[in-house]
Amino acid sequence: MGQGPHWIGLTRAAAERGVPGVLSVPLAIGKPEERRMFEQLGIPTPSHACMVDITAQVQQIVARSGIKEGICHVFVPHTTAGLTINENADPTVQSDILRELDKIVPWRDGYDHAEGNAAAHIKASMMGASHAVLVVGGRLRLGTWQGIYLTEFDGPRSRQVWVKVVAG
Amino acid sequence: MGQGPHWIGLTRAAAERGVPGVLSVPLAIGKPEERRMFEQLGIPTPSHACMVDITAQVQQIVARSGIKEGICHVFVPHTTAGLTINENADPTVQSDILRELDKIVPWRDGYDHAEGNAAAHIKASMMGASHAVLVVGGRLRLGTWQGIYLTEFDGPRSRQVWVKVVAG
Amino acid sequence: MGQGPHWIGLTRAAAERGVPGVLSVPLAIGKPEERRMFEQLGIPTPSHACMVDITAQVQQIVARSGIKEGICHVFVPHTTAGLTINENADPTVQSDILRELDKIVPWRDGYDHAEGNAAAHIKASMMGASHAVLVVGGRLRLGTWQGIYLTEFDGPRSRQVWVKVVAG
Repeated sequence: MGQGPHWIGLTRAAAERGVPGVLSVPLAIGKPEERRMFEQLGIPTPSHACMVDITAQVQQIVARSGIKEGICHVFVPHTTAGLTINENADPTVQSDILRELDKIVPWRDGYDHAEGNAAAHIKASMMGASHAVLVVGGRLRLGTWQGIYLTEFDGPRSRQVWVKVVAG
Repeated sequence: MGQGPHWIGLTRAAAERGVPGVLSVPLAIGKPEERRMFEQLGIPTPSHACMVDITAQVQQIVARSGIKEGICHVFVPHTTAGLTINENADPTVQSDILRELDKIVPWRDGYDHAEGNAAAHIKASMMGASHAVLVVGGRLRLGTWQGIYLTEFDGPRSRQVWVKVVAG
Repeated sequence: MGQGPHWIGLTRAAAERGVPGVLSVPLAIGKPEERRMFEQLGIPTPSHACMVDITAQVQQIVARSGIKEGICHVFVPHTTAGLTINENADPTVQSDILRELDKIVPWRDGYDHAEGNAAAHIKASMMGASHAVLVVGGRLRLGTWQGIYLTEFDGPRSRQVWVKVVAG
């Protein structure tokens, strides 16, 4: 990990959706030796509900970490967006996931939460905020058809994803 | 971590719900050097379905571990309760989550499980039993609005949560 | 972990379902010293939707790792199967989970995904692809009634589960 921010190239899927850019910022909190402990990805989400493929950006962080064998922890610090690992080939899988979740948890359903986005909170809990992926030979070890996705349920917004690679 | 049990102060949210006390017990299995490997929180849940904010208790375990950078693993050893990370500000988010999950997985829906709590098992799997949170500078690194919750789906009961902090 | 493949005995639950065998293959990619970094379980799933108890196989990998204290990461590299931790005693819990998920996410529901298995993708995301279990005293530390399950949503198929044990 370097000292400055890293502008990371878009994934094809993100580019097709018109995401203007993804910014990765190494931690700048605490003492210098702590600065390389995790990295923060900045993910602008383009629409109200969408899945943004962040696999390439997470892989770049794994590569920069220099860790060959271990675990890559991915964490979303939001409560109306989540993370999931699912198919990266046919984009209809993503639209089917989003539409079906909207049937299961309708946007309007007599919720009490005054902000009006209770459905997004519920869907975020159904997807989860933390996932872990194996690191083997310096690379994320995913299944052939798997990608790591930020699941946006109340966008468009600027979102963050935290990535920490632990040797082991 | 000390040798004896640690009585940990209630979170405000737990206090408001009338939770009488939360007990943290360091592991007392195996050899002495293993005793500090994880801690067990005792969480009395006050009602049939509720979310109990355990963030402060988990943070105290992180502090006692002395680990500055790493991962905090949180695990619930039950099959009718789960864990989730969601909003800690407006309590209607919690009640909306619980009520909507009850619509999605009705308590009575022709289940075969003779104990009558199949819905609680299903909701537990939807939330998940294990979550991981980054530890940075000796503290849990959560989003501004995030709290860690035990999600009770078949209470009131005495529940446990296991917490293990790993340096890395 | 040894050098060759390990044939691992079936769990009782798997045997009752007629699973013909479960094969564990240590990683054979990269340099020799990396070969013991994780193990792959081969899990033949016997039906279209089922839960296969993999606890015993994961425990054997933990034992072979020689790691006494740490975290056992379990990962499924598929997008139409997931992982969950739930009750290992009454098999109706498993059938109730599968049937209720089928009500929540019907197999036919106007999906766009041409392969016809969109529901399986959605259910996989609801269960999750990665879980972590504490390792204490050289053994998985699970709750009394907990087992680790591969959740098959589009079988029968040959599935893999990756298991990595990290000391800590």
